Order: sequence, then C-alpha cells, then structure tokens
Amino acid sequence: MNIVLSRDAQVKIMEMTVSNAEKYFGQFCSVLASYTRKTAKLRDKADELVKYLIDFANTENPELRTALKNMADELAKIQDYRHAQVERLETKVVNPMKSYGSLIKDKRAEIKKFNSVRNREIKELEKLEKLRHRAPSDRHIISQAESSVQKASVDAARTTHQLEETIDHFQMQKIKDIQKMFSDFLTVEMIFHARSLEVFTNAFQNLQECDLGKDIEDFRSKIHIKTSNEDVRSLQATNLSSNATWQASSMSVQSTLQRHQEVEEDSFEESEEEDDDDYEDHRRAEYATLRK
Amino acid sequence: MNIVLSRDAQVKIMEMTVSNAEKYFGQFCSVLASYTRKTAKLRDKADELVKYLIDFANTENPELRTALKNMADELAKIQDYRHAQVERLETKVVNPMKSYGSLIKDKRAEIKKFNSVRNREIKELEKLEKLRHRAPSDRHIISQAESSVQKASVDAARTTHQLEETIDHFQMQKIKDIQKMFSDFLTVEMIFHARSLEVFTNAFQNLQECDLGKDIEDFRSKIHIKTSNEDVRSLQATNLSSNATWQASSMSVQSTLQRHQEVEEDSFEESEEEDDDDYEDHRRAEYATLRK
Repeated sequence: MNIVLSRDAQVKIMEMTVSNAEKYFGQFCSVLASYTRKTAKLRDKADELVKYLIDFANTENPELRTALKNMADELAKIQDYRHAQVERLETKVVNPMKSYGSLIKDKRAEIKKFNSVRNREIKELEKLEKLRHRAPSDRHIISQAESSVQKASVDAARTTHQLEETIDHFQMQKIKDIQKMFSDFLTVEMIFHARSLEVFTNAFQNLQECDLGKDIEDFRSKIHIKTSNEDVRSLQATNLSSNATWQASSMSVQSTLQRHQEVEEDSFEESEEEDDDDYEDHRRAEYATLRK
Repeated sequence: MNIVLSRDAQVKIMEMTVSNAEKYFGQFCSVLASYTRKTAKLRDKADELVKYLIDFANTENPELRTALKNMADELAKIQDYRHAQVERLETKVVNPMKSYGSLIKDKRAEIKKFNSVRNREIKELEKLEKLRHRAPSDRHIISQAESSVQKASVDAARTTHQLEETIDHFQMQKIKDIQKMFSDFLTVEMIFHARSLEVFTNAFQNLQECDLGKDIEDFRSKIHIKTSNEDVRSLQATNLSSNATWQASSMSVQSTLQRHQEVEEDSFEESEEEDDDDYEDHRRAEYATLRK
C-alpha cells in the first residue's frame, strides 16, 4: 500500500508541476505580450515627437534647425531599434511562451490517463477487500480478485513510470525553456539599451555643440529695422508733400500684407508635406534594412 | 511709408515666432506627456512581471528559484530607474514645456498692444490724406493732422522697438530653453539606458550561471519511486494475508490525500501573500531611497 501512497504523492507533485506551468506561463505570456504592446506604443509616441521636431526645426534659424533635425534623426533611429525590439520580443519570448499552452494540455491529458488507471487499481483493491469480508473462505474467487489487483497494479506501475518519464522530460524542457526565453528577453533588452545609449549620447553631444548665438544674430537681422525718431521725422518731411505717394503706399501696405501671408502659409504646408514623405521614406528604408 | 511696410513685415515675423512657439510647444508638451505616461505604463507592466517571476520562482527547485528571484530583483531595480525617469521627464521636460503656455499668452498680448498703436498711426495717415483732398489750402488743419500723424508714428516706432526687444528676448530664451529641455530629455534617457544596460547585463550573466542539472536531479528525486514489477508483487504477497492492513491502508490513502492537498494549497497561498508583502516593502524602500 506504500506504493499507492507514495505514487499519489508523486503524481500530486507532477500535477502541481503542470498546473504551475499552466498558471505562470499563462501569466508570463499575457504580461510579456502587454509589455511588448506598451513598448510599441512608446515607439509610436516617440515617432510623433520626431515628426513634430522636424516640423518645428523648419521654422527655426540654421543652427537650431540643423541641431533639431539631427536630433530627430537620432530619435528616429532609436525608434527603429525599438521596433526591432518589439518584433524580437514577439518572436523570441511571447510566441515560445504561447506555444506552451498546447504542450501543457498534452501533459494534462497524460495525467488524466494515469488517474483512470490508478482508479481502476483502487477499485480492484476495494473489490478484493469486500470479497475477503463476504467470502473469506472462497479461495478461488479471492485468488481471481488478487490476480486482477496484481494486473491493475502492474498497469498502474507502468503508467506511473511512463508519466514519470513524460513529466521528467517536460520539467527538463520547461526549465531549459524558461532559462532560454528569459535569456532572450534580457538579450533583446540589452541590445536595445546599448544601442539607445550610444545614439542618445551622440544626439546629446550634437545638441550641445549647436551655436545659438549665430541664430540670435540671424533672428535680430530679420526683426530689426532702423526706427529712431529722427529717421521717422526726416522721412515724413520729404513724403508729406505728395498725395500720390501716400495713396500708393497705402495700397501697397495691403497687398504686401496679403502676399506675405499667402507665401508663409504655402511654404508651411509644403514643408510639412515634405517632412511627412521624407519621414515615411526614411522609416520604410530603415525597416527594410532591419528585415534583411 | 517704407517704415510702415518693413515694420509690418517685421511684426509678421514676430507674430509667426510666437504662433510657432504656441503650436509646437503645445505639440511637444502633449506628446512628451504622453511619452512619459506610456513609460509609466511600461514600468507597471514590468512590475507585474517581477511579481509573477517571484511567485513562479517559489514553485521551482533551488537553482532556478534563486536565479529567477535574482532576475526579478534586477528587473525591479530597472523599474525603480524607470520610475525616476518618469519623474524626471515630468519635472525637467514636460513641466517647463507646459509653463510656456502663459509666457506665450503674454507675448500675444504685447503684439496685440502694438497692433492697436499701429492701427492708430494708419488711421491718422488716412485722416491726413482725406484732408489734403478736401481742403488742400487749409494749412492750419493740415498742419494739425500732420502733427497727429507724427505723434502716432513716434508712438508706433517706440512700441515697435519695445516689441522688438520683447520678442528678441523671447526668442533667445526660447531657443535656449529648447536646447536645455531637449538636453535634459536626452540626459534622462541616457541615464536610464546606461543603468538599465548595466543591470540587464548582470541579470543575464546570473541567469546563464544557473545550474539546471542540479534542479533536474532534485525534481527526479521527488517524483521517482521504486516501482519495478518485482517490488509490486512481493509487496502484495506479504500484504494480502491481512484484511485489517488493507482497510487501514485504504483509509489512510484518503486522509493522506486530503492532508496533502490542504498543505499544498495553504503553503501556496502563504507564499503568494509573503511575496506580495516582500515585494511592496521592497518597492517602497527603493522609492524612498530615490526620493532622498
């Protein structure tokens, strides 16, 4: 009977092994899939930032414009790495974790099969026991029952042995896979962080080197005109003598303002469209490279 | 009149400067806030993974248990860095970006003030023009109008100069702040990636060193019992002579199974609760350290 007892304890451990795998692999799969999706969302947000940076850069003077565009390029590079990270997490971590679902189902089926064999053994044992109570002297019938018990026990022993081998193999595979999957997870993250660190460092140095003084001079030259009071007075003294001049000037103020506005609106729309195309082309080219 | 023309072009540039700042700082603020929130969500997901890893580790044999718990600790450390990253992004990037909202509003008000002064100048010019058409010989009234034009022009020149200085200062501050905010953004990211890389590398090495062979031996010793057919037969031969033994055994099978189940369920719940506490304490301690 010690065999039945220790066999039950043994099978209990095996059942726990499979149940735990089911529970925790399920949790790992779902949390890692979610982690991957959130990483993809972070990539998308940073992509938006890249787009805004390029748009904004186009409204600034040369030094800052170049610096911001360079930074946008570096940030886009990091998003390409992040995209590769997302794809690798899916392929190397989430999918292998997911595939455990059907493997665990198989093991459950084998345990179920074992349990039915074990129940038959217990039933035969109970039958034998009853016979010994009711007909202790009927050696023939008891001997038959003993033989059935023995047969059921041999079956149970064989199935236990099979199950033992199956679960042993499952456990070995499982812990190897866990080590492999999390090693892959850590590798994917390491690669991403190493590359990002490099690119961020580059971007930082470039941004530091940007000479804002030049841009300020550029800006000043655009908004500054000579408007001292003497200039205003002398200009008025010469102009006040002619009506025609005032009228012509008054008209040209309006048309200049209109033209000015039109030009600026057009160039802004154009530059935005160009950026979009450049940006998409850039991303597609980068992804194509990554896929190779 | 050239003054009015170039002044309009000049103010147009200043208006564009403020409008662009409003548009792009608004976009930066919203996309960076969203980027920060998504980073926080990634931290939360990784925190979940840490929790599951510890729970799962507690169901495994010593080598893998230790390896997974160490890895969970390292992952938790990275989430503490990520938490610091989130806080720094808010403090050093999103909030300064946000504060530009009211600054831009002030600049808009100054441009509006300038425009009203400029409109007064144009009105005075138009008035003078009309008078010269209607009463070209009334020197007194024309002289009065000329004096009003001159006064309005001086006002406009002064306001232009003020606006010029204000916008010059705004632009200088703005490009400095852009450089500062994005340098801070890059620094926060660099620090996070550098630390993460270090910790992930550690975690990877630890996981590689884990000796799974030992765990497999441990597991085998738990699920393996001697169940050769000879053992089964010899055990039956000695036991079949006593009814009492069978009965007692049969009862003990049931009670042992029940006890076994209870113990396992209890210990599982306990270990889960303990982990929760450990985990929370750990996080709280870590955050407290970070806050110091």
